This record gives sequence, structure tokens and C-alpha cells, in this order.
Amino acid sequence: MIRLAPFALAAACAAISLPAAAQFAKPEDAIKYRQSALFVMGQHFSRVGAMANGRIPYDAAAASANAEIVAEMARLPWTAFGAGTEGGKGKPEVWKETAKFKEHQDKMVAETGKLVVAAKAGTIDALKAQFGATASSCKACHDSFRNQ
Amino acid sequence: MIRLAPFALAAACAAISLPAAAQFAKPEDAIKYRQSALFVMGQHFSRVGAMANGRIPYDAAAASANAEIVAEMARLPWTAFGAGTEGGKGKPEVWKETAKFKEHQDKMVAETGKLVVAAKAGTIDALKAQFGATASSCKACHDSFRNQ
Repeated sequence: MIRLAPFALAAACAAISLPAAAQFAKPEDAIKYRQSALFVMGQHFSRVGAMANGRIPYDAAAASANAEIVAEMARLPWTAFGAGTEGGKGKPEVWKETAKFKEHQDKMVAETGKLVVAAKAGTIDALKAQFGATASSCKACHDSFRNQ
Repeated sequence: MIRLAPFALAAACAAISLPAAAQFAKPEDAIKYRQSALFVMGQHFSRVGAMANGRIPYDAAAASANAEIVAEMARLPWTAFGAGTEGGKGKPEVWKETAKFKEHQDKMVAETGKLVVAAKAGTIDALKAQFGATASSCKACHDSFRNQ
């Protein structure tokens, strides 16, 4: 049997749990948080998409402003998928295939960063191409990790 | 009777509605958006508060990171209180006393900006003082404009 002094055990637990669940008072808060962040992101992403797809007139300044919010929001949801927060629209795979899930997060965050660059380029063609690439990164993760 | 050419009328309507409701496909999206943005902000603000109030250890880097997200989120909810989006927790006064509501928004956004500065100052005392001032700006608006 391995014995640990209480303070060492407490420190170890803190180190393990801090990045995720410990930031939320209860699992429901984590679920609501990640859904909220993704909803806000989705609203701004759909405004970029409306321009990219020609449903509303292209406006370079609005495209940049929305893309920047998308990229900011894209960083947020992931700490809220910690152990003990199963549920919402997340498939069990979120908590089983954590390395693959992390790859999808990183890919999406990277694509939203490129979306900001593309939006700032100031042409509809640049925006269109990167909107498609970003949307694909959303879809790839949803296909594997989100219940429809 | 004043007659307007159709294109002029369309342009006028767009100019009036764009900053608010026109950004959302339906009023329910606007309500969900503002509640989502405020919930995400509240989660990060509560982490700053937990340090300011001594419930968790002070961590300058975490305080700054959370304060920055608070300030980013603080800019977002207001376009989602446009005409036709009455409901949620908003009192009717939101849509009647628009100048006063705007003053409260501006005050809160300014206080969250000061919160970032205070968090970056790197002392618990600076954080405590500005956490209190920021929380007061939240409460002042809630007292007048939010159903409990």
C-alpha cells in the first residue's frame, strides 16, 4: 500500500482536477457553460457564413468583427467537458476518446484563427474559402462527438 | 403623403434594424444569445470573485485570464435586446428606458475594463477593490432591468 501525506494527496487532486471540473460549481453549470459558449460562437459564425454564402451583402468590417468573436469563443468550451460532466449533447466518446476529441478542438481553434486572418484580408473569396474549412472542422467534431 | 422609392425604404429599414434584431434569425435566438453570453461572463466573474473573497487561493495569472474573458463577454449581450425581443428575464423597462439601460451597459463594460487592469496589477487588494466596483455595476442594472 502506498501512503501519501494528506497535503501531498490534496495537491495531487488539485493538479488533476483544476483544469476542468473544479472550475464549475456543479456539472450542470459545466454543461450550460459549454452549450452557451458554443451557441454564442455559432451565432457569430452564422453571420460570417451568411456573407460567405451570399445571403447578406459582404461587409469586411462586420466579417472581421464576427470572426474575432468566433475565435475568442472557440477557446472556451473545452474545459467544461471534464470528468463528471457527461451529458448534454455530448456522446460518451467525448469522455472515452479524449485524445481524438482534443485533436478536433485544436483543429477547430486553429481554423477559427485562420478565419480571422481571412476576414481581415478583406475579400469575399478569402472569406469563402476559410469559412468552408472552418465549418468542416465543426462538422468533423460533431459527427464523432455530438448527438444530433 | 411621403413616397419613398422601394430601394430607399429598404435601405432605411436596414439602417434602423441592423444593429439589433436583424442579427438574429428569430427573437428566441436573441434571448438565448444574451442569456448565454451573460452566463459565460458570470462563470468567469465568479472565479475572479472567489479569489477576491478568499474562497480560493489568489492566482494572478488566473485572475487576469478570467478578467479578460469577462471584459470580452461584457461587450456582447446588448445587441440582443433589440425591439421585438422582449422576454426572458428582461423587465419591460429594458425596452422603455433605453437611454438608462444603455448607461448601465456602458458602466458595466467600463468596470470590466478596469477589472482587467486591476487583475494585471497583480495584487489581491487591487483585485478586491475592482471586483466590488464591477459587481456593483452588475447589481445596479439587475435591480432596475432584470426580473429576479
